[in-house]
Amino acid sequence: MAAAPLVVSVPEIEYAEALADLDGVDTVVWDMSEPHPRGAEIRLTVMPYMTRLRLADVAVGLDALEVVQLQSAGYEQFLPEVPEGVTLCNAAGVHDASTAELALALTLASVREIPKFVVSQAGSTWEPLILRSALADSRVLVVGYGQIGRAVARRFAPFEVALTAVASRARDGDDLVPHVHGIDELPDLLPHHEVVVVIVPLSEATRGLFDADMLGRMPDGAVLVNVARGPVVDTDALLAECASGRLRAALDVTDPEPLPADHALWTTPGVLITPHIGGATQAMRPRAKALVRRQVEAMLAGGPLVNAVATGGTAGG
Amino acid sequence: MAAAPLVVSVPEIEYAEALADLDGVDTVVWDMSEPHPRGAEIRLTVMPYMTRLRLADVAVGLDALEVVQLQSAGYEQFLPEVPEGVTLCNAAGVHDASTAELALALTLASVREIPKFVVSQAGSTWEPLILRSALADSRVLVVGYGQIGRAVARRFAPFEVALTAVASRARDGDDLVPHVHGIDELPDLLPHHEVVVVIVPLSEATRGLFDADMLGRMPDGAVLVNVARGPVVDTDALLAECASGRLRAALDVTDPEPLPADHALWTTPGVLITPHIGGATQAMRPRAKALVRRQVEAMLAGGPLVNAVATGGTAGG
Repeated sequence: MAAAPLVVSVPEIEYAEALADLDGVDTVVWDMSEPHPRGAEIRLTVMPYMTRLRLADVAVGLDALEVVQLQSAGYEQFLPEVPEGVTLCNAAGVHDASTAELALALTLASVREIPKFVVSQAGSTWEPLILRSALADSRVLVVGYGQIGRAVARRFAPFEVALTAVASRARDGDDLVPHVHGIDELPDLLPHHEVVVVIVPLSEATRGLFDADMLGRMPDGAVLVNVARGPVVDTDALLAECASGRLRAALDVTDPEPLPADHALWTTPGVLITPHIGGATQAMRPRAKALVRRQVEAMLAGGPLVNAVATGGTAGG
Repeated sequence: MAAAPLVVSVPEIEYAEALADLDGVDTVVWDMSEPHPRGAEIRLTVMPYMTRLRLADVAVGLDALEVVQLQSAGYEQFLPEVPEGVTLCNAAGVHDASTAELALALTLASVREIPKFVVSQAGSTWEPLILRSALADSRVLVVGYGQIGRAVARRFAPFEVALTAVASRARDGDDLVPHVHGIDELPDLLPHHEVVVVIVPLSEATRGLFDADMLGRMPDGAVLVNVARGPVVDTDALLAECASGRLRAALDVTDPEPLPADHALWTTPGVLITPHIGGATQAMRPRAKALVRRQVEAMLAGGPLVNAVATGGTAGG
């Protein structure tokens, strides 16, 4: 007698197509807007991206549920409601290419003065030929050297820059940097880098990491690129450094976020702001589909799950 | 008896400093604004960058002149006035890093919608979270695969894109592309690339290369990045493709250039314009100094000159 198929729910048809050739898998498309008739059979459910759904609501009637697969790297808001015995898996890796790419886009836009030329273009003005700034020859500090940090460094490498990496603890280097510095070395490293890219996770250790003292250690004219989380940088301290013209900033994340219309950061000179668009691009789709497929294969093989971040206990949140 | 020193004129003191440790070299700083008292001894003269000086004027009284070193890659305007027996050398390579870097800046700014966010920022508007476009997974066509084209390709390589290179003639590939296509294949390649970066030299073969037919072969939503010369692209044809919303463009060069204030290109949707800033950055300075040093060393050694592009004949322009 054949084993019962692994019933998987996916939020969109294209995810089902990515699983179509796998034997022993029965995929249903479920956007979670109302209960699914086969809900009780679903063992793996893939959540929609950018959802406000709560796991407590999603899990109602899903009596066979084993795994919840998120499409975001962040998962903190789901932790309190992971059902007992169910494993929560995040989408680490799915947004790396897109986020790392934005770090370069923000850096290059800032260093090569793209915002200024956009304004000149709106005024039909051809700016005069003068010797301008470039990224080449800059010393680039990547603060946070996990998977995305390395993706950032890999993209900077061909730009004829000197790369330095900082992680929570010092360790040996890789093909991109000879050595990974510990976060305790950050104060001494900052004065020697014209570009600082922040991609640390937000934690109690990193909240407010770039305060007035740390920002004050950056050299004149340096640019701070934040593609991590807004609260990693002290907004008021950054505002003061940029308002004085001493530092520049390119921010995909802010604190507060969204930035209120009357916030001074919008109009501070030398500040470029994008509205938290780092990971939210079409580039996530093939990578999310590949992750779901790897997860399904892991379940079929009875092997370890991919990106498991928590399993619901009996006590509840 | 020691040989007479090689007298070199440089336009700025920092170039002299870069030669200070070379034996047998006597460097004078000369900005060419008036005749130099030791003009008759100068054998190598380095022209100022972004100069409007004419060689016929510069060479007056320079009876020992052997080599004129330019700081630009372009040299066409100097050709008619190269003095008899004097070799003109250009600065090929000096601006590669800066120009290649701008190609990436323009591409990333365009694909990741930086101009749109600059406008939103000016209006203190946090744009909504939607799935946007990314560079990752794009097929990138580099048209013109000389030294700068390779520098462009090298910078694109880590962005998880598929790279295709086109040169004047097909040849074997390198570490970046498996094969270099000939320009005759361009019409068949264009439909398969979302990003097209143009970095061909301007010649009778490339003038108007991107005409209505070629642009029409680019797929919907594709972006044309021109860091070559304006006349390589038919401005009216590009304007039509962008005005309809079918193509996007990011242009460091235009035709005409500078773009007149009343030109429609300034305000065409999807067009990003920078005012020919590709090579004119601080990144050129260490590279120009290194080139001057190599040139002086070549002359000291009696070896072949670096970047020789023409030697003045007896007939004159």
